[in-house]
Amino acid sequence: MPELRKDPVVGRWIIIASERGARPSDYQANREPIKENSVCPFCPGHEDKTPPEIYAIREMSTSPNTPGWKVRVVPNKFPALIIQNPLKRQGEGIYDRMAGVGAHEVIIETPEHSLSLDKFEEKAIADFILAYKARVIDLANDKRFRYILIFKNHGASAGASLSHPHSQLIAMPIIPKHVKEEIDGARQYYDFKERCIFCDIIKQELEDDKRVVRETPDFISFEPFAARFPFETWIVSKRHFTSFFDITDNEIWDLSVMLKDLLSRINKVLTFPDYNFFIHTAPLDAPCLEHYHFHIEFIPKLTKIAGFEVGSGFYINPTSPEDAAHYLKECECIK
Amino acid sequence: MPELRKDPVVGRWIIIASERGARPSDYQANREPIKENSVCPFCPGHEDKTPPEIYAIREMSTSPNTPGWKVRVVPNKFPALIIQNPLKRQGEGIYDRMAGVGAHEVIIETPEHSLSLDKFEEKAIADFILAYKARVIDLANDKRFRYILIFKNHGASAGASLSHPHSQLIAMPIIPKHVKEEIDGARQYYDFKERCIFCDIIKQELEDDKRVVRETPDFISFEPFAARFPFETWIVSKRHFTSFFDITDNEIWDLSVMLKDLLSRINKVLTFPDYNFFIHTAPLDAPCLEHYHFHIEFIPKLTKIAGFEVGSGFYINPTSPEDAAHYLKECECIK
Repeated sequence: MPELRKDPVVGRWIIIASERGARPSDYQANREPIKENSVCPFCPGHEDKTPPEIYAIREMSTSPNTPGWKVRVVPNKFPALIIQNPLKRQGEGIYDRMAGVGAHEVIIETPEHSLSLDKFEEKAIADFILAYKARVIDLANDKRFRYILIFKNHGASAGASLSHPHSQLIAMPIIPKHVKEEIDGARQYYDFKERCIFCDIIKQELEDDKRVVRETPDFISFEPFAARFPFETWIVSKRHFTSFFDITDNEIWDLSVMLKDLLSRINKVLTFPDYNFFIHTAPLDAPCLEHYHFHIEFIPKLTKIAGFEVGSGFYINPTSPEDAAHYLKECECIK
Repeated sequence: MPELRKDPVVGRWIIIASERGARPSDYQANREPIKENSVCPFCPGHEDKTPPEIYAIREMSTSPNTPGWKVRVVPNKFPALIIQNPLKRQGEGIYDRMAGVGAHEVIIETPEHSLSLDKFEEKAIADFILAYKARVIDLANDKRFRYILIFKNHGASAGASLSHPHSQLIAMPIIPKHVKEEIDGARQYYDFKERCIFCDIIKQELEDDKRVVRETPDFISFEPFAARFPFETWIVSKRHFTSFFDITDNEIWDLSVMLKDLLSRINKVLTFPDYNFFIHTAPLDAPCLEHYHFHIEFIPKLTKIAGFEVGSGFYINPTSPEDAAHYLKECECIK
């Protein structure tokens, strides 16, 4: 029987319709090939094919924009927002607009063109997370920016146009809608209970133990109760903190273990699907909130977003989070 | 230069990044073929392949569930919500759930398996809109339902699994998130201005004449100022009314003309892309609102929804609404 579930943070209802296709093998996971250029602009030796690097983790005594890097951050060649724009606000009758000021950067995660995230050394994952952190700390100095979203598109169906492993960040002059909804929802809960809802979710998930995929010293990964998408997985820090730039070195290491673990399980159970993940953190002007909580949302591309979802903002999830957690937990993929 | 624009109804910011790919030919429009079954369950003569019909427009003296129909409405064989479910609400710690009660129906728009919507006679379009209306009036009697969403998925990438022309409706026990956001935003505007924001949008669009595609006696079609997607087009009634079931026969005829016109233009400019459209109407328990306004949103599938969009609810639109309106307006496709 289908069931309606309400997201405890944003109040969004979703439909769990398990009888529609519960098993991983029922999904025609999206694995759309990316049309490869003959020359990959992200490979070592092709540093001149990207704008000059902003940040890198490199071997000692190698020069910027030459090989020898482990992680490399460059401006996006086709930016969605532009840093030189002035922040001009304008009305036009009932409409409002402003200039598209912002920063759009690419984090090249590894020199190896075809390395899947589950095959990275933990140290290499920690390196690109350190690069995320360094860039966020730097960009936070620009007071025009209110939010920095870090996200990854893997595979053509997830929106990637290059296959070399990379993530992106966009610094923007607004707080994006979904983050604002989470913060507002979490504040309502805090006003009522005087507790962080994410901390309460962690507690209940660990007690129920029906949706948890993995627990490490600093994080838990679990399938959210009202998951919009099959095998949607959240990684939440056990310690309450709001801003990504408050993450400690120990936590970065632990998060690397967690990400590698999750990708290993996902690739085993769903056979290397395309996917997205993104980091939800505090707005830059409100870095420490009692009611909001740092987390990562991971979504494999298994279903199509159709007229119903676009028209309603209401999602039909054909695999229950409990079933998804069971598949991910039981798979014997960890070395 | 990229530009940020704010949706006047829901307050959602979007990015217009025209330099990323403004021209229709730059889009690899999604035209994913649907795997055809050897027997189409929606074709005349195969009426026994669907659940028994709920409603039909038929030739005189033909029997239900036999050929002779022009439009046929049947329950969805794989419903997302089920009408027999009791509306049971339940808590589980911090979580809330209820049984998935609702109705999920398929409107088979024509007996002709391969007829594209722009090739329908206006009369045939009016017929399936009449069928929508008849079903909505009937389902509104079930007091468990709070909203009925009518939507169409055309093509595999837009979520269709059968190619025979059809739309769907889902009656549900909640008001979907996107509709609630529109109603709340429109109410705020009404509280401030004492005018319907959609009526004001129509007025400004007709005056500006930069985003209008077509005007008929009862409707206008236009590219919304803060369109999330390239060539996103709205069809809005000039008369202020809220509920789809208040549409008059004259307006249904005019809407048929408008839909045919829009599809002709879209197919000409974008070479038959996959698409979705959906109807936004009043909640069943608040059919007449001074501040909310019946409209249709049409979205061709031209771009991928990637990590940035899913993570932020913030959209990057590579074609400005003014450019899109220009292409759609100028194309000489109307016979």
